[in-house]
Amino acid sequence: MEYSCSAYELKCNECGKRFGNRAISGCPDCFAPLEIVYDLDAARGEFTRESIAAGPANIWRYKRLLPIPDGFQPDLPVGFTPLVKANRLGKRIGANNLYVKNDAVCFPTLSFKDRVVSVALANAQKFGFTTVGCSSTGNLANSVAAQAARLGIKASILVPADLEPAKILNTLVYGAQLIRIDGNYDHVNRLCTLIADEYNWGLVNVNLRPYYAEGSKTVGFEIAEQLGWRLPDNVVVPMAGGSLIRKIRKAFKELVYLGLVEDKPVKFFGAQATGCSPISVAVKTDSEMIPQKPNTIARSLAIGNPADGPIASKMILETGGWAEDVSDVEIVSGIQELAETEGIFTETAGGVTTAVAARLYAHGRISPDETTVICITGNGLKTTDAIADRYEVGRAIRPRMADFDAYLKELEGASEVEPELALAGGVREL
Amino acid sequence: MEYSCSAYELKCNECGKRFGNRAISGCPDCFAPLEIVYDLDAARGEFTRESIAAGPANIWRYKRLLPIPDGFQPDLPVGFTPLVKANRLGKRIGANNLYVKNDAVCFPTLSFKDRVVSVALANAQKFGFTTVGCSSTGNLANSVAAQAARLGIKASILVPADLEPAKILNTLVYGAQLIRIDGNYDHVNRLCTLIADEYNWGLVNVNLRPYYAEGSKTVGFEIAEQLGWRLPDNVVVPMAGGSLIRKIRKAFKELVYLGLVEDKPVKFFGAQATGCSPISVAVKTDSEMIPQKPNTIARSLAIGNPADGPIASKMILETGGWAEDVSDVEIVSGIQELAETEGIFTETAGGVTTAVAARLYAHGRISPDETTVICITGNGLKTTDAIADRYEVGRAIRPRMADFDAYLKELEGASEVEPELALAGGVREL
Ligand SMILES: Cc1ncc(COP(=O)(O)O)c(C=O)c1O
Ligand SMILES: Cc1ncc(COP(=O)(O)O)c(C=O)c1O
Ligand SMILES: [Zn+2]
Ligand SMILES: [Zn+2]
Repeated sequence: MEYSCSAYELKCNECGKRFGNRAISGCPDCFAPLEIVYDLDAARGEFTRESIAAGPANIWRYKRLLPIPDGFQPDLPVGFTPLVKANRLGKRIGANNLYVKNDAVCFPTLSFKDRVVSVALANAQKFGFTTVGCSSTGNLANSVAAQAARLGIKASILVPADLEPAKILNTLVYGAQLIRIDGNYDHVNRLCTLIADEYNWGLVNVNLRPYYAEGSKTVGFEIAEQLGWRLPDNVVVPMAGGSLIRKIRKAFKELVYLGLVEDKPVKFFGAQATGCSPISVAVKTDSEMIPQKPNTIARSLAIGNPADGPIASKMILETGGWAEDVSDVEIVSGIQELAETEGIFTETAGGVTTAVAARLYAHGRISPDETTVICITGNGLKTTDAIADRYEVGRAIRPRMADFDAYLKELEGASEVEPELALAGGVREL
Repeated sequence: MEYSCSAYELKCNECGKRFGNRAISGCPDCFAPLEIVYDLDAARGEFTRESIAAGPANIWRYKRLLPIPDGFQPDLPVGFTPLVKANRLGKRIGANNLYVKNDAVCFPTLSFKDRVVSVALANAQKFGFTTVGCSSTGNLANSVAAQAARLGIKASILVPADLEPAKILNTLVYGAQLIRIDGNYDHVNRLCTLIADEYNWGLVNVNLRPYYAEGSKTVGFEIAEQLGWRLPDNVVVPMAGGSLIRKIRKAFKELVYLGLVEDKPVKFFGAQATGCSPISVAVKTDSEMIPQKPNTIARSLAIGNPADGPIASKMILETGGWAEDVSDVEIVSGIQELAETEGIFTETAGGVTTAVAARLYAHGRISPDETTVICITGNGLKTTDAIADRYEVGRAIRPRMADFDAYLKELEGASEVEPELALAGGVREL
């Protein structure tokens, strides 16, 4: 379970010890997370704007700065999701220069987790694992199941028992073994740490975690490239384990180091649900992170004791950024705002991000004219239960003009009297 | 409601009369569908492999052969979805050279309808409509609602009352007005024809239909380009109105005419559900199309009296192709096969296409070594109800190693005794 590689290797965040490339969860000496380090100077001539532009329209265009073993043949066109200007959402929340990075349409399973999984599975294959798996709050489960199916590898996936039905089905359909755990994500994750010791499995966010996490850098690379090789002023990122937000920053730093973008201060803003806000609380109180017991509809973000939480909260403050958390009601509004203004249907995590962004503008933490990117990381079709009861489906009418005319008058009449109630041809409960 | 344009205009399929560019459903003289015709020779120097490669990674790279008004600024990065080699699915169905064109991840609303809607709405804006709409079997509803929201245009959408919950929610969430009709799609569509006469609305598949339909050509352009500017031997395409399959052929013909690909025979294969198979029956019996009353879980394909059905069935036979239809049970198996082998979760329409493809190989209608592309046109998260009862979610276990070990033995034991039953960690009902 080891391979050698001149381009990158594992290094302990704490003690600095290096480990080559192998399947381990953390530093055996000091228990700190491991990081992939690169010989960046060796990459200088090879990781250029031109070489990247000549690559495929997916994350593999950034392969040179991902921990991808020599000889790996990228199979799936993961990532390179749209970055869209969000003028209508901007108008609603007071932003003049707002962009949405839309991983709700990431290939193949509609969340940014597809990025991390494809990098992890490249390594799982190199290490020779014939079973892969993960502990997951849902999106990771979907992505591991789908990508393992395509590779013909067995997948065994552990999730909290109360996961959303769509995320469960979207794991089972790929033929994965799904194991439901009576407990929350933190229980599941602890169990997976034990499993990694006992079974010869490649668990993407446990013993493959350092490789896995690097996949998130591609969000940062894409944002910079899609802005025309320019860094934004602010990034708003949802946080569960706290990995994505850190890796976007790492990506920006690598781009600066290699001269692909001009250096400039970028503020990082973290978004959580109030029902699971260990990182945002740590930021807002500028103190040590205290684990929480999650209770929120944003299940994909419901990690009470996030592995990268402490580092993420420090990093956020270091950049001059901030973190916020929003209630479940605000999360639903966030989903609705984004859909109604930009035509993007996101899951609860995206509702968190949108609602947090709105608050950051409202509180003056982000200035209206600055270039700000909000990261929408998952698809609304996976968490329909969170919003379904907000909409009342109107009665069915007969297929006749007279009925149609009358019904339309009724609807329009309703919307004149009480505009809030007529939204969507039905009643929006308040 | 008219604009002039030197690059393209409307022409009657039947009588050949030309109409410039305006919002009309069909030829007022002979009631035949209208087609967009181009001055192809004028496009010769401008629609080249090089000019296309220099365009953006979305359908707008093919703008020169789409009915897009001068000055239109493409806003959304629609299309350019993955074409993936499907070796594992191929192995299961006896295909050695199989590709999946995956519009299950089309931006923004996860079906190929995003292509047609973006072309239609470009024209709706040019014509000055302030309300747009459609009659829909679901995917079109989602796409019109989302894209209209982004443009800030009002959307009013008519659907059969019994549409899948996810497709209903995924229309309402964008703030669209949803009108449910007591009847099937054909009732809805007839009503919409009347509405187009009475209201000043741009109904994308009624009075904007000729523009709308052209958007489907981009599937054909992309297939050819992604195969390395080469036509496949066979294409398998799901059919509802019968438009997509025709337009893929039109795209191939344009590419041949302009010299972007070498000419060669391409066989077109149509896929329908047995519960709504007017076109496939017409093909199989080589006779006039007879409308049907739909009854199938493949609701997105449930058009009993398809506008382009007669032309599509003739065209299929002309190419030496064939059509097939499959039962609801086969549709579900098709969804499962594709997910388990390729990691692609498609909706019922994709189950139809996959199951039909399997049958075409089994019956020797397609030879194993030929290059064949199957078109997966929608996402599985929109029709979860169709497959949910196939999976039994296993019991939850405590987060302890002993419990895990025991449970895993149980699962693996089950799979040794009765492999079919252990699929997906649960029981697959047969
Ligand atoms: C949709 C979505 N967004 C954001 C995140 C947060 O990512 P991280 O754990 O890297 O902080 C997750 C994690 O599961 C997620 O599923
Ligand atoms: C998912 C899906 N596939 C295929 C089709 C068929 O397209 P056409 O009506 O052009 O035959 C539709 C039409 O609604 C659809 O929704
Ligand atoms: Zn250490
Ligand atoms: Zn005519």
